[in-house]
Amino acid sequence: MARAREVSEFAAIARLAALFRGQSPHVVLGIGDDAAVLRAAGRLVWTVDTAVEHVHFERAWLTLAELGWRSFQAAASDVSAMAGAPVAALSSVIFPAGFGASELSALARGQRAAARTLGCQIVGGNLARGGELSITTTLVGRVKRPLLRAGAQPGDELWLCGELGLAAAGLRLLQRGSRLQNAAARRALRAFRRPRAQLHAGLALAGRAHAAIDISDGLAGDAAHIAQASAVRLLIDLAALEAALSPALRRLAPHLGASALELALYGGEDYALLAAGPKRARPPGARVIGSVGNGRGVWLADAGKLRRARPGFEHSGGRKRPGVGV
Amino acid sequence: MARAREVSEFAAIARLAALFRGQSPHVVLGIGDDAAVLRAAGRLVWTVDTAVEHVHFERAWLTLAELGWRSFQAAASDVSAMAGAPVAALSSVIFPAGFGASELSALARGQRAAARTLGCQIVGGNLARGGELSITTTLVGRVKRPLLRAGAQPGDELWLCGELGLAAAGLRLLQRGSRLQNAAARRALRAFRRPRAQLHAGLALAGRAHAAIDISDGLAGDAAHIAQASAVRLLIDLAALEAALSPALRRLAPHLGASALELALYGGEDYALLAAGPKRARPPGARVIGSVGNGRGVWLADAGKLRRARPGFEHSGGRKRPGVGV
Repeated sequence: MARAREVSEFAAIARLAALFRGQSPHVVLGIGDDAAVLRAAGRLVWTVDTAVEHVHFERAWLTLAELGWRSFQAAASDVSAMAGAPVAALSSVIFPAGFGASELSALARGQRAAARTLGCQIVGGNLARGGELSITTTLVGRVKRPLLRAGAQPGDELWLCGELGLAAAGLRLLQRGSRLQNAAARRALRAFRRPRAQLHAGLALAGRAHAAIDISDGLAGDAAHIAQASAVRLLIDLAALEAALSPALRRLAPHLGASALELALYGGEDYALLAAGPKRARPPGARVIGSVGNGRGVWLADAGKLRRARPGFEHSGGRKRPGVGV
Repeated sequence: MARAREVSEFAAIARLAALFRGQSPHVVLGIGDDAAVLRAAGRLVWTVDTAVEHVHFERAWLTLAELGWRSFQAAASDVSAMAGAPVAALSSVIFPAGFGASELSALARGQRAAARTLGCQIVGGNLARGGELSITTTLVGRVKRPLLRAGAQPGDELWLCGELGLAAAGLRLLQRGSRLQNAAARRALRAFRRPRAQLHAGLALAGRAHAAIDISDGLAGDAAHIAQASAVRLLIDLAALEAALSPALRRLAPHLGASALELALYGGEDYALLAAGPKRARPPGARVIGSVGNGRGVWLADAGKLRRARPGFEHSGGRKRPGVGV
């Protein structure tokens, strides 16, 4: 960290250091040295997530502050899915020609707003020039007992925390250059531009759920990760899922050539949480959308009939290319 | 973390998980869930560093394994400069079209080799498609008492740990497409392609040095960071510095249109450490190249005459653009 090869970039760092100043008891040293220093005890969850221009977003789709917010919340969603509480973050930005100090600051203000909402401090990072804009966010969180993908048990309920499908609808509106301006469209655009990691829902799952994952690639795909890691069958009740979807999504879906259920199952972009746990432990706010049984894979129950969920993903446009965690 | 939207990418993750398997007592959970889990106590240093194609490297200059090695060591150098010992790392790779599973594996093998050398485990990461190749490495290290840039005191010696200038010479050979094949050229190319973070030197500085930084942007520029953070004057003795440079560098410099001293002062790419500390505490292997005094800035002592070090940096080619830490 802490490289500055041009005078203007010294200034950029000074501005970012001022923007990101904080007073977390977990942070011994923030921006300005070779590395940040944290005070740690117990278990830490640690994740990294990258948003790449022309892959995960187009700059025309959202403001730079929204981009900073969105990329930060996406990384925090992984911490939430482990039942962790974000503590500190580093941000590595690759920026193209024409992306100057004011653009960096706008991006940073969005990151800072997201960090504050999550009780987290940005303690350093890296800036590098490149051909296209990308933001890589790495987050450390505290956790007592991390909630894994493995652990779901036959007999568990499937719980949904947060909203599904709406952000995918917002993305499709943007990809199509839609001029739809009703309340439902505004909600969908906001869901895409200003997602929120399910911090409190994640913490509430600790000690209650047996397994959890964040749903950023569509319910079907992320459910498959729990099914595989837990060696169980996940049954999604389509009627229960449909009842959990927002009226805005149901109103928008016909304009997007998809059903609300398709957007929820295969859409992505949401950062809701999917968890499995026993009925008696269900936390307030979690909606039951299915159950866990013996077997393998993800199945959809539709008016009493069972069918296997499609293994693949339905991408909403040609521009969006995959990101893959390791 | 842990997103996979295509079947082939599930396979890529499985391969990486197998490659990066480890048994560090500090790692509770590695690759395969939403986040990694570490066991932590005390203080942690934490850094992120990004290497971007066409900015920090060209793929024609080094193998993918060397690129993985180099990018990992560059990130570890920041941990070493804080007197920390790397514990775990996450790797976020943006890869362009045509960069497939075998290329990812080659890159990962270089990262793994570097991680093993440093006693560090790669516990996760992110893969995303993009227009150009970049590797972002975030590293956590243990540290008892972090060694900062601030703390150098008048009367301290200036210590150099590691080699200066040779990697910059290697980079210039590559940028010029030089066909020089003598032993000096081979050493320089190796210094660029296979740098080593000064892990043991950094640990040896703990409790001895008052301040330290890693020299990745040339001695003059990184010395300025210590001078500024410590509010002191750093005096570099050019005769002592020249004596510390390798004969290979002195042989190569004339071919590169620069002096050996210029390459050491303004070249970059080295990942040596610069530290300030009292003579009685000088660790074995550290070479004295100057002293700390009252005042400000970085000064060069040349046969009894003092001049201020150039504030700017002499870039060796038009293709290399700056990276900046925050």
